[in-house]
Amino acid sequence: MDRDPILLTPGPLTTTLRTKLAMLKDWGSWDSDFNAVTARLRAQLLDIVNGHETHVVVPLQGSGTFSVEAAVATVVPREGHVLVLDNGAYCKRAAKLTQMMGRRASVLAFAEDEPVSAPALAARLAEDASITHVVLIHCETGTGVENPLADVAAVCERHGKGLIVDAMSSFGALPIDARTMRFDALVAASGKCLEGVPGMGFVFVRKAVIEASAGNSQSLAMDLHDQHVYMERTGQWRFTPPTHVMVALAEAVAQFIEEGGQPARLARYRDNCATLIAGLSALGLQPFLRPEVQAPIIVTVHAPDHPAYDFKRFYAAAKARGFILYPGKLTEVETFRVGCIGAIGRNEMQQAVNAMGEALRELGLPAG
Amino acid sequence: MDRDPILLTPGPLTTTLRTKLAMLKDWGSWDSDFNAVTARLRAQLLDIVNGHETHVVVPLQGSGTFSVEAAVATVVPREGHVLVLDNGAYCKRAAKLTQMMGRRASVLAFAEDEPVSAPALAARLAEDASITHVVLIHCETGTGVENPLADVAAVCERHGKGLIVDAMSSFGALPIDARTMRFDALVAASGKCLEGVPGMGFVFVRKAVIEASAGNSQSLAMDLHDQHVYMERTGQWRFTPPTHVMVALAEAVAQFIEEGGQPARLARYRDNCATLIAGLSALGLQPFLRPEVQAPIIVTVHAPDHPAYDFKRFYAAAKARGFILYPGKLTEVETFRVGCIGAIGRNEMQQAVNAMGEALRELGLPAG
Repeated sequence: MDRDPILLTPGPLTTTLRTKLAMLKDWGSWDSDFNAVTARLRAQLLDIVNGHETHVVVPLQGSGTFSVEAAVATVVPREGHVLVLDNGAYCKRAAKLTQMMGRRASVLAFAEDEPVSAPALAARLAEDASITHVVLIHCETGTGVENPLADVAAVCERHGKGLIVDAMSSFGALPIDARTMRFDALVAASGKCLEGVPGMGFVFVRKAVIEASAGNSQSLAMDLHDQHVYMERTGQWRFTPPTHVMVALAEAVAQFIEEGGQPARLARYRDNCATLIAGLSALGLQPFLRPEVQAPIIVTVHAPDHPAYDFKRFYAAAKARGFILYPGKLTEVETFRVGCIGAIGRNEMQQAVNAMGEALRELGLPAG
Repeated sequence: MDRDPILLTPGPLTTTLRTKLAMLKDWGSWDSDFNAVTARLRAQLLDIVNGHETHVVVPLQGSGTFSVEAAVATVVPREGHVLVLDNGAYCKRAAKLTQMMGRRASVLAFAEDEPVSAPALAARLAEDASITHVVLIHCETGTGVENPLADVAAVCERHGKGLIVDAMSSFGALPIDARTMRFDALVAASGKCLEGVPGMGFVFVRKAVIEASAGNSQSLAMDLHDQHVYMERTGQWRFTPPTHVMVALAEAVAQFIEEGGQPARLARYRDNCATLIAGLSALGLQPFLRPEVQAPIIVTVHAPDHPAYDFKRFYAAAKARGFILYPGKLTEVETFRVGCIGAIGRNEMQQAVNAMGEALRELGLPAG
């Protein structure tokens, strides 16, 4: 039958039909109707982090990584020194893009199955005064580990360092409050926990920081200062916006608000995650992370230690049953990943667990 | 009534319902089904320029300007010297982004109501051997003028200079043939004459050039070499692709092929443009460009020389009748612009002309 598979992936993910239906209309990007959608969305995004007093939000075309690069390029002066707290693949990517653009970048490495450590950051900042900015990945999608945003923000504030947060896969689900967590920039995207479609990111920037950031970026496309100044002046995006992605995100955020906002979304994802982990456990599959550090966003699962297991065959068997899984991103241990996010609930997660059990049995593995 | 207005804009533009309906499905970006869409689309894009022998095509997230910046960053070595042929706003933007990324950029200025001159380029190249690359905007959307791509390509080839073509608003409509026009890179985007929705660009790069381009880009997100190598190896995009935009473009290209490809599209746009200009003339409105240099993409029109004329009121009156116009981009003379592209034909253009006439009369102007 022609039913769409459910995406158990960290974005693009399964969106509601209502969100997708918003794309059945073409919008003039210069027109006041579209500008009103942009303005309303920006206000709603600031609402989510209680950021109206302290921050602006600047949308940007492209994938989330484009917005991470734009945040570093705009917020960090050319002579700045960025320390990346590294416990996974997305941390390494942030360090790489910082180095490529010519900013000095250092890495503070942690084990990838544990959160980064705020005390270790404090010690490093105390011994290297040249560091100007810290980059934190809030939920490291490579493993699914939740990093301690509030603690890291407190250390950065105490040491007078700028904090750039990649909140790509946490924003909208995990609590983020600009009134209690001080950050210079925080990055997220349309196609993650807000449950829009992929194609744009957005960056919250502290007002004093965006005002002082003119001339930092060596990229025109990624200059958030220029994007912000133009948008404030005209109500429009600087360059052609992804109009259909934008109106889909606006529709997704309307549903986010109707659902009850971040607390309700977190509760649903926690329930999805608990359903998944309990179901996997019954199949004899173990999560890579201990429960205390597992964000309810994406779960890394140890591959079955059985000669008949093969990820590609497992993936195909689960897909044939209507569920799209995600490959692991670890190099040392064989794993696969299952997303808990998107427009899905307990029923879909239980169906997914059932399908994974059937898929394993089809491969000739014992399962449950 | 709730009928969508027709966008007489240079993109985003009016797309078919079939194109938009393709977005009613969520795709896993790692999944083989999506990879197959990407692969087929890339082959079809190469077909359009007869480029399979000589070029690769690299898609990129973001607006068209992102792809222009990526083309320059990837193709021009750090010590390169770029000469921008400047007859309008998009030329100036290309020069600006080249300078910002730290490449040496010079500008050869032309009048904005005339095409750039290939002989003038030849003279400049003869007197300045330090120039390594030339940037040409094929159809300068600021005015709508068509620049002589074949002549400029021949001059660049004769002088051994790399040519980067911004074919954003011409690709798919004006003829471009990689077998007879030598270019290092040619840039276009989803939401223009292919009649997709906005959100991604793509760059044709000569095979020898992409192979030699590792390490040129100082931006991770805009490194087309890295994007290309990863896509060739895995079939996937490096970072989250705008999945819905991609499948809409694939559906739009299917319709492009069914319509008869570039010659058929050009014929329709020429008919749209002729209908528009004849209709405007009957209303007493004059195009900014002489007919010989007018591309059938977007027409810049002199604003009526009458005290009752006001663009905002004219725009609102046309919008109330179902047509979205576009503001002028010239600083010296007051103009407005009307796009001839998108999923529209002679009927829609005639209706638009009728609506513009009514709008002018509503403002109290004589019209026709």
